[in-house]
Amino acid sequence: MDFTPSPRAVELTEAVRTFIRDEIAPIEHALHRRQGEARRTGGADPWQVPEELYELQRRARAQGLWNLFLPAGHEGPYAQRFGTRGGTGLTNLDYAPIAEATGWSFLAPYVFNCNAPDSGNAEVLLRYGSPEQRDRWLDPLLDGSIRSAFAMTEPGVASSDATNMQLTAVVQGDEVVLDGRKWWTTGIGHPNCEVLVVMGLTDPGAPKHARHSMVLVPRDTPGVKVERMLDTMGFFDEPFGHGEVSFTDVRVPLSHIVAGPGRAFEIAQGRLGPGRVHHAMRMIGLAERALHLACERGLSRSAFGRPLADLGGNRERIAEARIAIDSTRLLILDAAWKLDTVGARGALAEVSAIKVAAPNVAQQVIDFAMQIHGGAGLSSDFPLSGAWTAARAVRLADGPDEVHKDVVARVELAKYSRHSSHSEHRAAR
Amino acid sequence: MDFTPSPRAVELTEAVRTFIRDEIAPIEHALHRRQGEARRTGGADPWQVPEELYELQRRARAQGLWNLFLPAGHEGPYAQRFGTRGGTGLTNLDYAPIAEATGWSFLAPYVFNCNAPDSGNAEVLLRYGSPEQRDRWLDPLLDGSIRSAFAMTEPGVASSDATNMQLTAVVQGDEVVLDGRKWWTTGIGHPNCEVLVVMGLTDPGAPKHARHSMVLVPRDTPGVKVERMLDTMGFFDEPFGHGEVSFTDVRVPLSHIVAGPGRAFEIAQGRLGPGRVHHAMRMIGLAERALHLACERGLSRSAFGRPLADLGGNRERIAEARIAIDSTRLLILDAAWKLDTVGARGALAEVSAIKVAAPNVAQQVIDFAMQIHGGAGLSSDFPLSGAWTAARAVRLADGPDEVHKDVVARVELAKYSRHSSHSEHRAAR
Amino acid sequence: MDFTPSPRAVELTEAVRTFIRDEIAPIEHALHRRQGEARRTGGADPWQVPEELYELQRRARAQGLWNLFLPAGHEGPYAQRFGTRGGTGLTNLDYAPIAEATGWSFLAPYVFNCNAPDSGNAEVLLRYGSPEQRDRWLDPLLDGSIRSAFAMTEPGVASSDATNMQLTAVVQGDEVVLDGRKWWTTGIGHPNCEVLVVMGLTDPGAPKHARHSMVLVPRDTPGVKVERMLDTMGFFDEPFGHGEVSFTDVRVPLSHIVAGPGRAFEIAQGRLGPGRVHHAMRMIGLAERALHLACERGLSRSAFGRPLADLGGNRERIAEARIAIDSTRLLILDAAWKLDTVGARGALAEVSAIKVAAPNVAQQVIDFAMQIHGGAGLSSDFPLSGAWTAARAVRLADGPDEVHKDVVARVELAKYSRHSSHSEHRAAR
Amino acid sequence: MDFTPSPRAVELTEAVRTFIRDEIAPIEHALHRRQGEARRTGGADPWQVPEELYELQRRARAQGLWNLFLPAGHEGPYAQRFGTRGGTGLTNLDYAPIAEATGWSFLAPYVFNCNAPDSGNAEVLLRYGSPEQRDRWLDPLLDGSIRSAFAMTEPGVASSDATNMQLTAVVQGDEVVLDGRKWWTTGIGHPNCEVLVVMGLTDPGAPKHARHSMVLVPRDTPGVKVERMLDTMGFFDEPFGHGEVSFTDVRVPLSHIVAGPGRAFEIAQGRLGPGRVHHAMRMIGLAERALHLACERGLSRSAFGRPLADLGGNRERIAEARIAIDSTRLLILDAAWKLDTVGARGALAEVSAIKVAAPNVAQQVIDFAMQIHGGAGLSSDFPLSGAWTAARAVRLADGPDEVHKDVVARVELAKYSRHSSHSEHRAAR
Repeated sequence: MDFTPSPRAVELTEAVRTFIRDEIAPIEHALHRRQGEARRTGGADPWQVPEELYELQRRARAQGLWNLFLPAGHEGPYAQRFGTRGGTGLTNLDYAPIAEATGWSFLAPYVFNCNAPDSGNAEVLLRYGSPEQRDRWLDPLLDGSIRSAFAMTEPGVASSDATNMQLTAVVQGDEVVLDGRKWWTTGIGHPNCEVLVVMGLTDPGAPKHARHSMVLVPRDTPGVKVERMLDTMGFFDEPFGHGEVSFTDVRVPLSHIVAGPGRAFEIAQGRLGPGRVHHAMRMIGLAERALHLACERGLSRSAFGRPLADLGGNRERIAEARIAIDSTRLLILDAAWKLDTVGARGALAEVSAIKVAAPNVAQQVIDFAMQIHGGAGLSSDFPLSGAWTAARAVRLADGPDEVHKDVVARVELAKYSRHSSHSEHRAAR
Repeated sequence: MDFTPSPRAVELTEAVRTFIRDEIAPIEHALHRRQGEARRTGGADPWQVPEELYELQRRARAQGLWNLFLPAGHEGPYAQRFGTRGGTGLTNLDYAPIAEATGWSFLAPYVFNCNAPDSGNAEVLLRYGSPEQRDRWLDPLLDGSIRSAFAMTEPGVASSDATNMQLTAVVQGDEVVLDGRKWWTTGIGHPNCEVLVVMGLTDPGAPKHARHSMVLVPRDTPGVKVERMLDTMGFFDEPFGHGEVSFTDVRVPLSHIVAGPGRAFEIAQGRLGPGRVHHAMRMIGLAERALHLACERGLSRSAFGRPLADLGGNRERIAEARIAIDSTRLLILDAAWKLDTVGARGALAEVSAIKVAAPNVAQQVIDFAMQIHGGAGLSSDFPLSGAWTAARAVRLADGPDEVHKDVVARVELAKYSRHSSHSEHRAAR
Repeated sequence: MDFTPSPRAVELTEAVRTFIRDEIAPIEHALHRRQGEARRTGGADPWQVPEELYELQRRARAQGLWNLFLPAGHEGPYAQRFGTRGGTGLTNLDYAPIAEATGWSFLAPYVFNCNAPDSGNAEVLLRYGSPEQRDRWLDPLLDGSIRSAFAMTEPGVASSDATNMQLTAVVQGDEVVLDGRKWWTTGIGHPNCEVLVVMGLTDPGAPKHARHSMVLVPRDTPGVKVERMLDTMGFFDEPFGHGEVSFTDVRVPLSHIVAGPGRAFEIAQGRLGPGRVHHAMRMIGLAERALHLACERGLSRSAFGRPLADLGGNRERIAEARIAIDSTRLLILDAAWKLDTVGARGALAEVSAIKVAAPNVAQQVIDFAMQIHGGAGLSSDFPLSGAWTAARAVRLADGPDEVHKDVVARVELAKYSRHSSHSEHRAAR
Repeated sequence: MDFTPSPRAVELTEAVRTFIRDEIAPIEHALHRRQGEARRTGGADPWQVPEELYELQRRARAQGLWNLFLPAGHEGPYAQRFGTRGGTGLTNLDYAPIAEATGWSFLAPYVFNCNAPDSGNAEVLLRYGSPEQRDRWLDPLLDGSIRSAFAMTEPGVASSDATNMQLTAVVQGDEVVLDGRKWWTTGIGHPNCEVLVVMGLTDPGAPKHARHSMVLVPRDTPGVKVERMLDTMGFFDEPFGHGEVSFTDVRVPLSHIVAGPGRAFEIAQGRLGPGRVHHAMRMIGLAERALHLACERGLSRSAFGRPLADLGGNRERIAEARIAIDSTRLLILDAAWKLDTVGARGALAEVSAIKVAAPNVAQQVIDFAMQIHGGAGLSSDFPLSGAWTAARAVRLADGPDEVHKDVVARVELAKYSRHSSHSEHRAAR
């Protein structure tokens, strides 16, 4: 249980923090405000990527702060081609503090080419993609020259149970034919989105977890139609966005199936382990930022003759936030360490645990920060309303809290049913 | 402790529900969606009142569902002039179920001319206004021909402590001169807004609660400038909105001070008692709607072979929601009944208690409803994200939870300090 | 929804409070301490009723404060025979504040002959008993000359599902033969206990809720054996107590079955409705006492230069306690009012709701009171540890929280399944 | 941040678990039951140490499982003299899993000579004691031949603020004279208790934290009187117990002051750091045991046709328990690691954080376990009621939750006030 980051991770984390502080932070608020203004007044198209962002990407890449999420053991040629300064090939544990650092800024993940869903899609291609699939999509993804989307959730069924997915991906000769409808297809709004990773039902007669396939669908394939973009609590998360997408007789070559038909569940699991560590650590970064803002506000404003921080239960809430953040960060580091040492299967419960814990802690801390800010906390003068929405959405994205708690409980109870003779005191070991 | 509504209240409540169901509900969602669309695409100005709304107002008024908030004892000529069918002059207890009914719809309060801040401002004029003030502003407010704004909170100070307010309202001869800045000035965005009720510091040397005055400032007075409109979690609450407003050498006649200089606190208290019952009951209506949506979704979607409602802790949460809603509704009815029977001063703790309890219950129930809806619960396909934002904002509007809890605690502890010989068993009475 | 107590109820409540303050309170703490001491040192038998208690009973009865729980419509001859001053025949709503008052004292229910399980058993006999059963057991119960026990829960099965009960009550000719084991048989330890109300399985082949019978078993019937007395968090609740009781070939006449074979569920439901109102209101009384002690302690002790009440979140907790107590009391009054007006079947969800809400509120308030008392709150110097244990036990007695939440959820969801066409806006009515 | 225990710690932890499972567990329940029985029936004196316990101590010591708490750097001659097999001199991090293991058993800490308050008192002597003090008391404490008591809390003042302590410890010539009253003096009931560590006020005119001294008072000094033993929720924690102790003109030599007059605060802080890690880890052990019992019960009993574990929100609660336990354990390991690496001063907030977090998690998990056990969970058939009481008491012992939250908040807010120019983005580092 050694959570000490490597010297390289320490150095990269510091570089990321410095970059966020010196390069991103000074323009982030203004950028958001300008976009918000544009949206209200019908000005600049929020779905275009502001030139500043591309410029930030260039500068980050020049400093080697690029594709840092790329996992150890897979960096191979990519580190050399796309990362300078060796900033890839990190373990989950090493990447965790970097992910936390990027959680302080809504723009940072994109600037460092570590943003969802592209990082997750890149991992899928890295682990399961054929050489042709990698050449066509992984290289430009890691280069930042294209973007991708991930299409799993469907509007017509309870998608928390992934076996419910009904979009069909039928093999016909050397083609796969997709028909159906997805929503919350993240990334589809980006002007550079060129490919969708789509989960579809291939063989309804197969065992439950071998029915679905993961298919790579070029964005411009006939029959792919973005019906509309969806908002999360009023936020459209431009320029990536979440779309409702219909698929009508969409045909792609059989070779576009990742790892072969029927392996979608296996791929989704593999995809989500490290991704959940990233998300969870970003939530910790967000929570830290909220607590920071709460303390600053609490010390700088007074009511009834005392600083807000000293009124009522505010100090207790600050302590509770610190305790919740610190213990949850440790829980995530532990899950990352287990992913590194025993793999995704052995860290199943741990990964579900952090999927539940992190956004809930963030939501609670942000709620407190909003409250201590008064009306300002609800407005877009502070990043709190955006932060709250982000944390709230993560409680549903990639499976709701309830589903992940069930995984944790299942693993816990399995300790007992496995050995019927499992007595209390044997368990004490 | 008789919470039975009068036959007239029962009849009006039923009429309001029917109107919402038959007239408002069928167009509300489409209207919201159209406005959202317009906002994104730079279409119709969301700050204009859609013609449908004016039409709904005419029809509501024709049915006597107009100005129902007007309190008993003050309806005098207004009931006759502006309300047909006697739909005014209700007690707080009688109005409560009507307010709950209007909580099911974001449009309803406006349609029935019972919306904040106009209803509160009308009450101020009714209770404290001079005949001239009433003629000029109360009549058109009750007629619906003008709108008003309420300006109390300031950006530069912790406004939870109202004695902090720094905008000056200095008496100079027969004029009052206002200088300073307000924000969260609700109603200022409405195209028909004609007057602001502004709280200003008149005499810094007076006792703490006699320093401020409440001043009526015509919207077009020179020096009144809307600096910008503010959003709440991304929502601008058009066409009313919340503005940041600067006052620069704003001069109005001395006669525009309500009830005379130094009486702002007294007026604010009187204004807020019934208003808090209205808000709290609307929160109950909102919570009921969220629970309703949660049950419908929970029964109509399945995962892992069972309806969502039967999975994990969902039934427990449904029960907890029902218990929380019902007990909080009763708490509000009790506060309303006390306002009616012992007045605002005697119901001080009760009114603060519901100010805390109602939005928190609503927020909790809505959060559950969002969760059981999955991604849909975050989108604007359902009214839940708007409902959540409304409930969250109410936890800060008119004083944050913490301030109101402190009022409740103060009243509680005062039972002890009043009689130093107050022993445990005497208190048992 | 008129919760106004009748003048008679007001008068009786005041008389009960006065009696508790003047007669019971002065000796209660000393009595508890003496008994505790005796228990530790092997002194006086705690299962004997202290003479003081009998004396208090006589004085209470002389004032007409006797059998007040006896419900309206059934007082008939009993009021005249056993109650002077007409202190019986109260509605549930009228009895509620009396029950609250008795919650301030652990002894009060017994002193007023309103204690569980005797009051519930008396109600069973009153509603379902034959004239012979009433003569033999109801009269002396109401007279206070005998006590009774209630035997439902079993050690070998999850008794939260009452259909699990396995003790057999087989009809053989004109006898009923009981075999099996019960525990948490409340009242069995009392020296005057003369009869047990026992739930047994009579016809395993009958429909689920018609299999069990309620049998009256004289305490001295051969085969009835108290295996041991059980403690609740270390408290034995002497002199009533809770026993584990074995039944071995226990034979009683067929006429000892209440209302005939197979009606145990119907009787249990009828028994528990009013009883749950009593329990819930006593929990409110207990919570009020805890809050009272917390305020007193919070004002009389100081740390870090301020009264404890003003430190950290204590004032917030006082407010939260006040809000929770008041809203829950109203919820109980509403359930009582519904029991009075629509009966037990119509108030099913309401009664389960208060069964959940009341002890949880009490437990939370008591926990706070303990905390503000420091170590003293854990000791027997204050009634808080006993209060906490009582509240904790009520969360399990008569069905755990979880079972009652499920009842509330079932009733809530049934509103939807009944009308498949039930749309959101129709529900708005 | 390396939490990996040393091989020696792993080995010792395993040995401790094995010893508890094989030696202590088989007799613990029977011992408790026998003592409980004795208490009720006036049998064997619960304040005598059962011979079985002494025998267990001998066997534990023979295996080298003795004084394991003795910290690294101080074992010196003690390890050789009193510990065989090198079972001392562990870091806080190494001792933590051992402390968790002992949390599964109420007897284990005593059996391994690692019980409070003796372990804490031994640490005081080790760090601050003079050679004479060590010879007289530390040696026999580590040998297990005497026991000690710790006297800090007072009945007359809010002891959460330690500067409130009023018992005087006045220097008169070469004597210290103690006058006043303590309570919750833990360990005073043990028949072998020979010395009290007493905190007294020496110089009221000194700076706040230099007024008090820590004095070693032999148990048989004239003027030391145990007024009574106190219970915690009905439990007396025999044979150690908590006493109310009066000190009347108690005179001891000046050399009995530990480290010199006025240093009590410094000593108390040093004493409590490691002790809080021990307590917190024992709470984790207790919580694990409660979760274990909950899972076993949940799988072995059924209601409504399903195992209890699968009903309602039980699986969610199992998951929440697992998440809370794991994250809190990590928080404690982190605090232990900081104590080892940066010392008590640098780990101030961390130690207060675990003091709050651990017993609250334990209490919550135990409450759930009690609930799933039904009535059995409240009885002494299971260790849950004792466990709950232990966890509840720890929320007050050594300072209530509220005081420790305040420490955490103080440290958090100090990050801001230190650098007035501390901006948000600098803090992001």
